[in-house]
Amino acid sequence: MITDVGIRTGGRGEDDPIVLRSQGSFAVGGTVVTGPDGDTAHVDHAYVQYQIPVNARKYPLVMWHGGGQFSKTWESTPDGRDGFQNIFLRRGFATYIIDQPRRGRGGRGEAAVTLPTVQPMNALLYNIFRLGCWVPPEQPRFFDNVQFPRDAAALEQYWRQTAPSTGTDDLEDPTRILMTDASSALLDKIGPSLLLTHSASGQFGWITRARNANVKAIVSYEPASFVFPPDELPPEIETRDPLAAALAKPIVIPRAGFDKLTEIPIQLVYGDNIEQHNPSHIAGAELWRVNVQRAVHFRDVVNRHGGQVEILNLPEAGLHGNTHFPFSDLNNIAVADLLSAFLRTHGLDPREAGLQ
Amino acid sequence: MITDVGIRTGGRGEDDPIVLRSQGSFAVGGTVVTGPDGDTAHVDHAYVQYQIPVNARKYPLVMWHGGGQFSKTWESTPDGRDGFQNIFLRRGFATYIIDQPRRGRGGRGEAAVTLPTVQPMNALLYNIFRLGCWVPPEQPRFFDNVQFPRDAAALEQYWRQTAPSTGTDDLEDPTRILMTDASSALLDKIGPSLLLTHSASGQFGWITRARNANVKAIVSYEPASFVFPPDELPPEIETRDPLAAALAKPIVIPRAGFDKLTEIPIQLVYGDNIEQHNPSHIAGAELWRVNVQRAVHFRDVVNRHGGQVEILNLPEAGLHGNTHFPFSDLNNIAVADLLSAFLRTHGLDPREAGLQ
Repeated sequence: MITDVGIRTGGRGEDDPIVLRSQGSFAVGGTVVTGPDGDTAHVDHAYVQYQIPVNARKYPLVMWHGGGQFSKTWESTPDGRDGFQNIFLRRGFATYIIDQPRRGRGGRGEAAVTLPTVQPMNALLYNIFRLGCWVPPEQPRFFDNVQFPRDAAALEQYWRQTAPSTGTDDLEDPTRILMTDASSALLDKIGPSLLLTHSASGQFGWITRARNANVKAIVSYEPASFVFPPDELPPEIETRDPLAAALAKPIVIPRAGFDKLTEIPIQLVYGDNIEQHNPSHIAGAELWRVNVQRAVHFRDVVNRHGGQVEILNLPEAGLHGNTHFPFSDLNNIAVADLLSAFLRTHGLDPREAGLQ
Repeated sequence: MITDVGIRTGGRGEDDPIVLRSQGSFAVGGTVVTGPDGDTAHVDHAYVQYQIPVNARKYPLVMWHGGGQFSKTWESTPDGRDGFQNIFLRRGFATYIIDQPRRGRGGRGEAAVTLPTVQPMNALLYNIFRLGCWVPPEQPRFFDNVQFPRDAAALEQYWRQTAPSTGTDDLEDPTRILMTDASSALLDKIGPSLLLTHSASGQFGWITRARNANVKAIVSYEPASFVFPPDELPPEIETRDPLAAALAKPIVIPRAGFDKLTEIPIQLVYGDNIEQHNPSHIAGAELWRVNVQRAVHFRDVVNRHGGQVEILNLPEAGLHGNTHFPFSDLNNIAVADLLSAFLRTHGLDPREAGLQ
């Protein structure tokens, strides 16, 4: 499988073998249901696949997928190139990739759930994920500069990299506690780590750090929502889009937990083709105009209290055409280089034996 | 992570690094739902994770989990030792591990499904999987010789390695066609391969071979059911256990497809603590008494037409205490050795470059 990317930074052996000291998987978190006769069922855990390269760096990368997604987010790309899993294994990082509770391999939940007959909604996702614009019955049109492969096979793979939630995972639900019960248990098990989140897992990342000091840094790719302390809520943002309004709603957490976010480097990464100014009537497009404003509010509140939140807009770093999935876009090695640079800047990439 | 097993065969570097030329994942098979306006949804595919070692052997191993299970079956064991994935990667085989349609990472199905509130049923599984005997409210008791770790942490991991079906996958359902649509598409994509099945995927393995000549051999660990041609149905087996009766029901397939099974080596592998003679009233225990009789019927019908089906009862090979999951039992390296021997005997393990 040949790595074929628009931007190559060269000289770092992106095609070298991946040499693993070990790899495996385990469940973490979860609860036990016990019947009156002592019989049991084990439910609501997360599932973690890990790979530890030989001579690994000190801090592993914990990778958490977004809404409707699972571990695939970080694995090989829709067109078969290396994703962040392979790229960062070759760069010496251990990886722990999560399927969150009630998703994919963590899908065994306690509560009853009805999954409805699937309704076509790729057009909405096409817009939300910023491949371009698709308003049926018109044909989809890629953005001119989009860093997504133009062949039908890649798009087919992309549409298949989703899995249903076998339980609730929305913002209002105690599931959020269940999510961070699992991630916090993972961090207790593996020790100090670097957390990557994406989209809907952004919220879980913030709350995981509020609960567990083993999170040494968070890099969040287009986090869908943000936490705020009760005494510093952000201003309203005017929008007529119900999804944008729902995600813009601040998640209020206690001040003590929020302040934990001021203790670590945090980077928020945004791609291209985000309308910054004018409300959009295209389903899915309005979301990001609102979201990037919320990101600024979040940065400002954390940093007002001594935090180190930075916003990395990829176009400002010279990378154009990135979608909602920069880590698997055609230029993902350049995106990975920016993550490597961030970790190096903060002294978070030392080589050191002793991981387990 | 130290490999700690009762039986070590030594000298083959089971603790050496795993050196991969590539690894990744993809969806295969499945269908597309198209709405009246041209919008789409992609559903009912299988999900495949692959790893290709440097200097791989000619034929990859395709590994298919059983009922209620997913890729974990072949990954690291409940107590963190290497499973067949790691063992056979170190022995030079590429691995393609399936999450079948409507399970785990292949969980996006088209049809509506209701998952009920989880009911405790570990006791039944304890018996079916032959860890020992558990009849609540009595405490579970391991078989004296069972090759399962005795610590609570391993059992906890074991109970969590299940995921719900997000759709039907029972014997009577057209899902079975959907299953082998996906596996046959996988074999078209990757070429001649060796297929490992387990329990409920046994049936899918037989039908995959009936459809696709790229299956060069099947090794099936305790397949739950068997196919027969319409003119050679097996005799009835008397049992009062409804689950045993259901699984003993022959799956009737056309003669032309059945005859494809005569063209390849097939091994059926059974563990220990199977009651061979007397019907049992313990839920789950009766299943295997019936199943091993069916296995003999299957072997005899295939071999009557020139086939090469053999039954490997592990106790007869000197391995005692194996459960329904021999590939992850404490003596799984010895079980792997028997698979290696089978492949060597049939000339199915050559080293040869050219895999993709």
